[in-house]
Amino acid sequence: LVRKVSLTVPRVGGDVPAVLWLPGTEAGAPPLVLLGHGGGMHKESPFMVRLGELLAGQSGLAALAIDLPHHGERTPAREVGLSAAERRRRMGLAAWRARNDSATAQAIGDWQAAIDVAAGAAALAVDRLGYYGLSMGTRFGIPLAAAEPRIAVAVLGLFGLPAQRAGSAFAQAARRVTVPVLYLLQWDDELFPRGDGLTLFDLLGSAEKTMHVNPGGHLGVPREEIRAAVGFLRGHLGGAVS
Amino acid sequence: LVRKVSLTVPRVGGDVPAVLWLPGTEAGAPPLVLLGHGGGMHKESPFMVRLGELLAGQSGLAALAIDLPHHGERTPAREVGLSAAERRRRMGLAAWRARNDSATAQAIGDWQAAIDVAAGAAALAVDRLGYYGLSMGTRFGIPLAAAEPRIAVAVLGLFGLPAQRAGSAFAQAARRVTVPVLYLLQWDDELFPRGDGLTLFDLLGSAEKTMHVNPGGHLGVPREEIRAAVGFLRGHLGGAVS
Repeated sequence: LVRKVSLTVPRVGGDVPAVLWLPGTEAGAPPLVLLGHGGGMHKESPFMVRLGELLAGQSGLAALAIDLPHHGERTPAREVGLSAAERRRRMGLAAWRARNDSATAQAIGDWQAAIDVAAGAAALAVDRLGYYGLSMGTRFGIPLAAAEPRIAVAVLGLFGLPAQRAGSAFAQAARRVTVPVLYLLQWDDELFPRGDGLTLFDLLGSAEKTMHVNPGGHLGVPREEIRAAVGFLRGHLGGAVS
Repeated sequence: LVRKVSLTVPRVGGDVPAVLWLPGTEAGAPPLVLLGHGGGMHKESPFMVRLGELLAGQSGLAALAIDLPHHGERTPAREVGLSAAERRRRMGLAAWRARNDSATAQAIGDWQAAIDVAAGAAALAVDRLGYYGLSMGTRFGIPLAAAEPRIAVAVLGLFGLPAQRAGSAFAQAARRVTVPVLYLLQWDDELFPRGDGLTLFDLLGSAEKTMHVNPGGHLGVPREEIRAAVGFLRGHLGGAVS
């Protein structure tokens, strides 16, 4: 049994829509996991819904997703109705990535405001947060985890850092991440070269970090890794066992 | 409850001592996992005993270990009583590795004979075998898995292949391994450079292979990975749940 609550997060420049999945049973205040969606996805893309329902329904954890900048209900009018691949192709991959990268500060502020709104809407334990975000969810998740001390554990991956960008703000944020991390890498990722993914894992400042590598492309993460990620989050945050 | 059986495997050139751990309950013929010890270790080194007891005691699997060539009761007289590190230092790392490498055909034959002896000594399902062997256990395990069609799943790692040895017999064996593999790599392994470990993972012919990478040195595999390995073997072989 899962309860789903839709929320609106007031922000300068426009409201941010959010959705909160809660365990159906009223067993105290569950720990909260932030779910950062990937590029071209949104807060209620099928995978996000499945993950939110899995966390709330089977692991005793609450899950919060927001539409990240330029995504979901925040998609620019001229891109509404296009698929993620079409949007990337139309803008070009470099411009698409540059736009997402330039939204990092906005995304961090959106997340921090959303945590407060969620904590006001339901009984949640927000002193120790989990974070799950792959691909664009890692682009924003690493600076967020570096800036937000309440994040206590993170699942990251499907991203990368070219070695020549080792001095970037993103790289510096990666070095400041110190919480336990489960990092997923697809060995044949067509969007992020293998070496760039390994470089980013290497850079993470966490003493406890584990990388799971599987063959296949960007969208081919094995189902088993989702179970491993949920177990990793639950192991570090607690939460009721089903 | 675990039953332990000591076995002797007759071989030209000298008997091979073996030990078999069996589930205490008589619940049919359990699947068998071969445990290949690391360099300088032997069939009843503390880690091997713990793993054998874990497999037989909690996972409904049988486990078989042998003293590999030049190890355990097969240690050359002038090296008896020395630690693994002392033996490596005295011979030099290159000579130590060359001696182990040259024992590959012997080790494969030892394993195949030991499987037959074990199957004659207890009711075992040996049509689908598991293999667990890190470091020297992978040096011998990859050629064994390539040669022995009954091996259906393997846990490997803490080893490596320099890119310039991509044409070696060992590399060719790695390409012929096609069973599901869990591959463990220590990011700061002082005995096998990171890049060599990644090269070997890349080379494995298995469609289903997963690499778990953790910070730390050769002997620092986190305890959690042992649990993951047992779950991986059990998931592919079956076996009773405790």
